[in-house]
Amino acid sequence: MANLPLPPGSTIGILGGGQLGRMLALAAARLGFDVAVLERDADSPAGQVSNHTIVGRYDDRAALAELAAVAKVVTFEFENVPAESVLALQELGVEVAPGPEALSVAQDRVAEKQFLNASGAPTVAFASADSALEAASVAAVMGAPLLMKTRREGYDGKGQRWVESVADAHNVFEALGGVPVILEAPAHFVRELSIIAARGRDGATAVYPLAENHHEGGILKRTLAPAKVSPQIALEAEKIAARVLKGLNYVGVVGIELFELRDGRLLVNEIAPRVHNSGHWTQDGCSVDQFEQHIRAVAGWPLGPTAPHSRVEMLNLLGDEVDSWAKLAHEPDTRIHLYGKRQAKPGRKMGHVNRVKAL
Amino acid sequence: MANLPLPPGSTIGILGGGQLGRMLALAAARLGFDVAVLERDADSPAGQVSNHTIVGRYDDRAALAELAAVAKVVTFEFENVPAESVLALQELGVEVAPGPEALSVAQDRVAEKQFLNASGAPTVAFASADSALEAASVAAVMGAPLLMKTRREGYDGKGQRWVESVADAHNVFEALGGVPVILEAPAHFVRELSIIAARGRDGATAVYPLAENHHEGGILKRTLAPAKVSPQIALEAEKIAARVLKGLNYVGVVGIELFELRDGRLLVNEIAPRVHNSGHWTQDGCSVDQFEQHIRAVAGWPLGPTAPHSRVEMLNLLGDEVDSWAKLAHEPDTRIHLYGKRQAKPGRKMGHVNRVKAL
Repeated sequence: MANLPLPPGSTIGILGGGQLGRMLALAAARLGFDVAVLERDADSPAGQVSNHTIVGRYDDRAALAELAAVAKVVTFEFENVPAESVLALQELGVEVAPGPEALSVAQDRVAEKQFLNASGAPTVAFASADSALEAASVAAVMGAPLLMKTRREGYDGKGQRWVESVADAHNVFEALGGVPVILEAPAHFVRELSIIAARGRDGATAVYPLAENHHEGGILKRTLAPAKVSPQIALEAEKIAARVLKGLNYVGVVGIELFELRDGRLLVNEIAPRVHNSGHWTQDGCSVDQFEQHIRAVAGWPLGPTAPHSRVEMLNLLGDEVDSWAKLAHEPDTRIHLYGKRQAKPGRKMGHVNRVKAL
Repeated sequence: MANLPLPPGSTIGILGGGQLGRMLALAAARLGFDVAVLERDADSPAGQVSNHTIVGRYDDRAALAELAAVAKVVTFEFENVPAESVLALQELGVEVAPGPEALSVAQDRVAEKQFLNASGAPTVAFASADSALEAASVAAVMGAPLLMKTRREGYDGKGQRWVESVADAHNVFEALGGVPVILEAPAHFVRELSIIAARGRDGATAVYPLAENHHEGGILKRTLAPAKVSPQIALEAEKIAARVLKGLNYVGVVGIELFELRDGRLLVNEIAPRVHNSGHWTQDGCSVDQFEQHIRAVAGWPLGPTAPHSRVEMLNLLGDEVDSWAKLAHEPDTRIHLYGKRQAKPGRKMGHVNRVKAL
């Protein structure tokens, strides 16, 4: 097993070589860790700044064994890591964080909502359906409109569609691929918020101030943080974060997406068991950002402070928006973070900027 | 020639793979650049976080050609880069920054002081000597004590000795290796300060607030920044920085070490044509740190802001002081920066911490 707290010079493994892995790797390097990335692409955003890239799929046993040979602590940049991969790593004596409970809950939208409600973290009303017939009968009971999502996979608005009328349920089920789904009642929210929280191996927790998020076409476009919220909402979000972290026996950073309702109540939309796009503002708003916080947690180090020193507007650079780098570089209060991706496809997250203001 | 401003995805070359190269590489990666390090050690602090390591000496023509094949802009982490290497890179169509003027001045302590005085940046009285006889006769004129330093090489207090009495000059000259030396009158300073300044390819300049430095055994131990200084001293330091940057037609970040005299005057001790240990505080005290600033300058990007958002006490971790990482990790306001060095030798710079306080 790993010797914790993990000493500098040790290797931290990261499953996934995208931008979240890259920023985790940069944070790990600052703290003196080596990084090994397991990723299918030999030239990945994370691999470019890491000591080792192990080229392979997440379920490639040989690649996992190679990772376990160098890294005694392994984390991941996205939630769809196969449970078997985590088990394989654990059998090889590796500490995987966050652990399998968090993954299994986050990988199944029904299990996620059941867990949340059982933990006292409210969500919209929902029901599952495994067939078109079942989807139709659920819709008949819940009424339309409903948001139908595949139970597994899907991100950035993919794998979900609106059921506009009860009669549509059958067709929407088929359009989503005929796989098990969740049907969700619409959330009549006034604002989308998120809270980035962390839990250490010692059970200590830390939360960053709430962020306000604006999506376009299902993709996060803009985050304002700290969000202007009432003390009651801040407190309620912190309570939700504490319940989620404790309920999952969590280690690492979690991103919790929230709906703020007109009456001031919060519903949980979803939880991401990893660093989160809506936490990128912490890079230029806080002394310890979400990436260092996650590395600290998984390495068994104490958590760092989460108080902001600046207010930040984070903007994602999607597709060819990254071509505006030269203009952005002229803005004195704009910090640029680019991911080393070789091709700007439409909607692809190429980078982000943090516009920094006084608190 | 390089296409400037250098677009993200381009490769920046760094001569030298130590901690300064590492922190430059991390800053370059944040801005979306690839990094190629030329370094003798295949597992160097900078190489660990870079896309490419080219293993070789700085004067290895094949290695320089390999670097020029990937990088159109090259910079360096220390001043003793051979002039021939810079010329070779320039002949291969590479933009080298800072340029050869800065290197030739910084590599020869006599040329450096002559340049400084000619630029209106005062220094202690000095004279050069190429033989023991000449050293003795200079000492007879200037009187003792004198600080004798080799004209070339030497850092962190190496390559220098005090001449305590005129009769010692001969022996000290021999003890320093019988090479050309500079003899300097003692500076009766009350404080050691430094200013980190930058100049862009467009001639724009930016200066960080002054830092106060404390050395132990010739090695920087502690920096406090922003230093508490009078507006007159701040202004005088900025004037000196502007003269140095302009006089060297400089591109990049420079570190200028200053002596503060009892009467409030400033003398320049030395200039380092690179990012500087006394500027590490900017990582946690400013929105754009000296490493990003240097990358911006050499890449032909506009300079970033230099106003601090926090006060910082920087402490170097020398040798086995790095073993205190676990204790330091418990200090909430202490940011840890470690360099990935495999062996902690006495006096070796293994990392630093920035203790962050409100301004």
